[in-house]
Amino acid sequence: MTLPDPQFNSLGELHHFIDLDGLNREQLTQILDTAEGFAGVNDRTVKKVPLLRGKTVANLFFENSTRTRTAFELAAKRLSADILNVDLVTSSTAKGESLLDTLRVLESLQCDMFIVRHGDSGAAHFIARHVAPSINVINGGDGQHAHPTQGMLDMFTIRRHKGEFQNLCVVIIGDIRHSRVARSDISALVKLGTGEVRVVGPRTLIPAEVEALGVTVYPSIDKALIGADVIMGLRLQKERMQTATVPSSSEFYRTFGLTPERLTLAKPDALVMHPGPTNRGVEIAGSVADGQQSVILEQVTYGIAVRMAVMSIVMGNATSLRRAEA
Amino acid sequence: MTLPDPQFNSLGELHHFIDLDGLNREQLTQILDTAEGFAGVNDRTVKKVPLLRGKTVANLFFENSTRTRTAFELAAKRLSADILNVDLVTSSTAKGESLLDTLRVLESLQCDMFIVRHGDSGAAHFIARHVAPSINVINGGDGQHAHPTQGMLDMFTIRRHKGEFQNLCVVIIGDIRHSRVARSDISALVKLGTGEVRVVGPRTLIPAEVEALGVTVYPSIDKALIGADVIMGLRLQKERMQTATVPSSSEFYRTFGLTPERLTLAKPDALVMHPGPTNRGVEIAGSVADGQQSVILEQVTYGIAVRMAVMSIVMGNATSLRRAEA
Amino acid sequence: MTLPDPQFNSLGELHHFIDLDGLNREQLTQILDTAEGFAGVNDRTVKKVPLLRGKTVANLFFENSTRTRTAFELAAKRLSADILNVDLVTSSTAKGESLLDTLRVLESLQCDMFIVRHGDSGAAHFIARHVAPSINVINGGDGQHAHPTQGMLDMFTIRRHKGEFQNLCVVIIGDIRHSRVARSDISALVKLGTGEVRVVGPRTLIPAEVEALGVTVYPSIDKALIGADVIMGLRLQKERMQTATVPSSSEFYRTFGLTPERLTLAKPDALVMHPGPTNRGVEIAGSVADGQQSVILEQVTYGIAVRMAVMSIVMGNATSLRRAEA
Repeated sequence: MTLPDPQFNSLGELHHFIDLDGLNREQLTQILDTAEGFAGVNDRTVKKVPLLRGKTVANLFFENSTRTRTAFELAAKRLSADILNVDLVTSSTAKGESLLDTLRVLESLQCDMFIVRHGDSGAAHFIARHVAPSINVINGGDGQHAHPTQGMLDMFTIRRHKGEFQNLCVVIIGDIRHSRVARSDISALVKLGTGEVRVVGPRTLIPAEVEALGVTVYPSIDKALIGADVIMGLRLQKERMQTATVPSSSEFYRTFGLTPERLTLAKPDALVMHPGPTNRGVEIAGSVADGQQSVILEQVTYGIAVRMAVMSIVMGNATSLRRAEA
Repeated sequence: MTLPDPQFNSLGELHHFIDLDGLNREQLTQILDTAEGFAGVNDRTVKKVPLLRGKTVANLFFENSTRTRTAFELAAKRLSADILNVDLVTSSTAKGESLLDTLRVLESLQCDMFIVRHGDSGAAHFIARHVAPSINVINGGDGQHAHPTQGMLDMFTIRRHKGEFQNLCVVIIGDIRHSRVARSDISALVKLGTGEVRVVGPRTLIPAEVEALGVTVYPSIDKALIGADVIMGLRLQKERMQTATVPSSSEFYRTFGLTPERLTLAKPDALVMHPGPTNRGVEIAGSVADGQQSVILEQVTYGIAVRMAVMSIVMGNATSLRRAEA
Repeated sequence: MTLPDPQFNSLGELHHFIDLDGLNREQLTQILDTAEGFAGVNDRTVKKVPLLRGKTVANLFFENSTRTRTAFELAAKRLSADILNVDLVTSSTAKGESLLDTLRVLESLQCDMFIVRHGDSGAAHFIARHVAPSINVINGGDGQHAHPTQGMLDMFTIRRHKGEFQNLCVVIIGDIRHSRVARSDISALVKLGTGEVRVVGPRTLIPAEVEALGVTVYPSIDKALIGADVIMGLRLQKERMQTATVPSSSEFYRTFGLTPERLTLAKPDALVMHPGPTNRGVEIAGSVADGQQSVILEQVTYGIAVRMAVMSIVMGNATSLRRAEA
């Protein structure tokens, strides 16, 4: 017997959005379809819909990330929610409050949704398990565990360009071991029935058990790229390069960098993706990052529609559950 | 002859909200009654009313307090006001501007209301005396002087649970001397005709003149708790414990901590209150803070409705005064 | 042949607002006339118009300035835009992103307007040249180059009090060399056909080529003030006073400070202006800054209407261009 996935409410609907492992193909597809509608909103002159009017969304960022925080803030504003940016460093540590005490206070202030970004794996899960039932928790990235909205915006970008997933060959390059993005991408790609998912990177950065997830480990980037429809780079954490097990920047670029020459090994219309910010000359050549096949900035744009979709789905389910219980 | 209370306008209506001393029972009751209406707004799906639409509320926090700042920010947003968070550390000190110069600039930017939090007693008073007549000032806590919105949310919490005040026995425990919360609570409790208000704490932390305010000093917490309807803890400032006159944390807990055993001395339905954040194991046992009789988190929730009430009352009076003068 | 001014779109309309040099008298007058309408909005009870509803304005402040940032934030809110405050210190440096990468991300997040404040001359220009065509850039002050919204609010203040410019004698006092405010004021005053513009200050702080701009350099403040209709002080950067070429505070005040005695040399109804924050007892006597002839705080107030005008004009042109191209 396994514990029920805390992401779902008693009606089996999505209540929190913590990682993609518990979601099935239909649920992933519903998010992508909903995001499709919001992508249109962002092209309109007035980029606003009133779906979350009168709701309060609290950004709980325990780890700095202007890019992700901003994307969530814009998504919330375009849904007409009120946004509360809570500085968790000054508030909780200054007066010695525990995380749970802080959560209780934010619940009591009648926030409706928490966006959680945390340096520790499992933090969003922990918060979802301890939060009041009226509150939706969305994981904005937790340690090396998951970054599910990044995973979904990557899927959205692929689907917009390539349509269905079953015939695609997707290559993920770099530090698979420490990447929450890789973890979420692999989970979504496999669930959506992607034809082939290949991973390649320094031996020390490929987890032994990764093939069990449904991917194939390739020994060399050149072999991995042959026939690829989608190439996903990952950000190499420079902090890690100081340990003996990880190659230097220049060595990494020589062995695994996505150069213009290597790009020609993939299909001519292969997409180049990266969660950003890129280290040019480390994971990817500047000319490739800025080149015709790159959709790196589209990923940023679609991130808003995808986050609007996730936020409105979990909030809508919360409302329908309250109605069902009343 | 005494100077007129600067909290009132020429029509005798509340214009600023600085401390509770100048308010009479009717005025306190009006705030509680108005908050009652807003408590309903916070339970609605769309938690917004348009009362302060197009008004600008500036949060002037000279002292850090995420909890109070957030509560005021949410109250303002639920009244549909625009909120401006002014970082007063960088702005005023970096360019050597005086406080009055800063106030003049904010006035000139046509802000309608200032929420002031300051480490010095009397700061909100000073600002109210020097501000343009069109601006309402609300005290969000000044030094050891007053914290009137905390006082009112405490009264609101008591009234919601206990109805009228005249038959109640309320006990306030701890550092009465340095607590702006205690000062505002005592003022409100006495004005509202509370049957009996008892204070108890280390001898060095009970001001000599406190009985003149209408309270009874008790020598021991056990005696004070007998027959209590409401028990209010106060936050013990750890900074003060380093001085010789204040007991250590463990000594304080042994002599004045609200333990489960001591709680049984009070009436079985006695409320346990605390302005937060609590020091568990110092002022209060964790099990009491989280227990059935605790309304500590309700206090946080009611803080929004009470602040909405105060903000809309002073703003409404400002509008009616402008109309009367026109 | 000169390069086209990047401030204008293909229809010759204002698209960015970087400096006043490229604008002609009609364009400056259009801004002043539009601001006249918004000055009324700021006097209304509900200080809001829906002109920028659904638009996202990003405050990109690379240099701290609470006063200017707040004025832009209020202007955007009163136009009903969504405002995004981007902390560029933590975001761009922490992960080693270049300025251009940061701009690309903000573009991809579908911001509509960037307000840029930067310590380097030319930064707003650089950003306008590299930004996506859909985005409007407004210069909130760049190095020693320009501060065009300050220039326009100064013109607005003068016009409100004095009507037409052709008969006016305007005196600008102080550090002309390093002042972006002086540069923008001189440009606007000359274009608007001001009768006479005089500058006066320490010899080391008057650029040699300044007379080519259409102003007269005066050797002494007393001579410059005779017959003046408008007196504009400039903020003396205390950092500069440590270099040998600039006099000390007290020496500056003795030689160039605007004292009550000196003020009597000007016309009896001369306006006293200053961009703030003032150094009292350095550029100006406190009694003059607070005196009957001072309009220093009016300048702050009018800054909101002027910024609303600039923002709505460039945004309106962007919309009409998109329509023309469609």
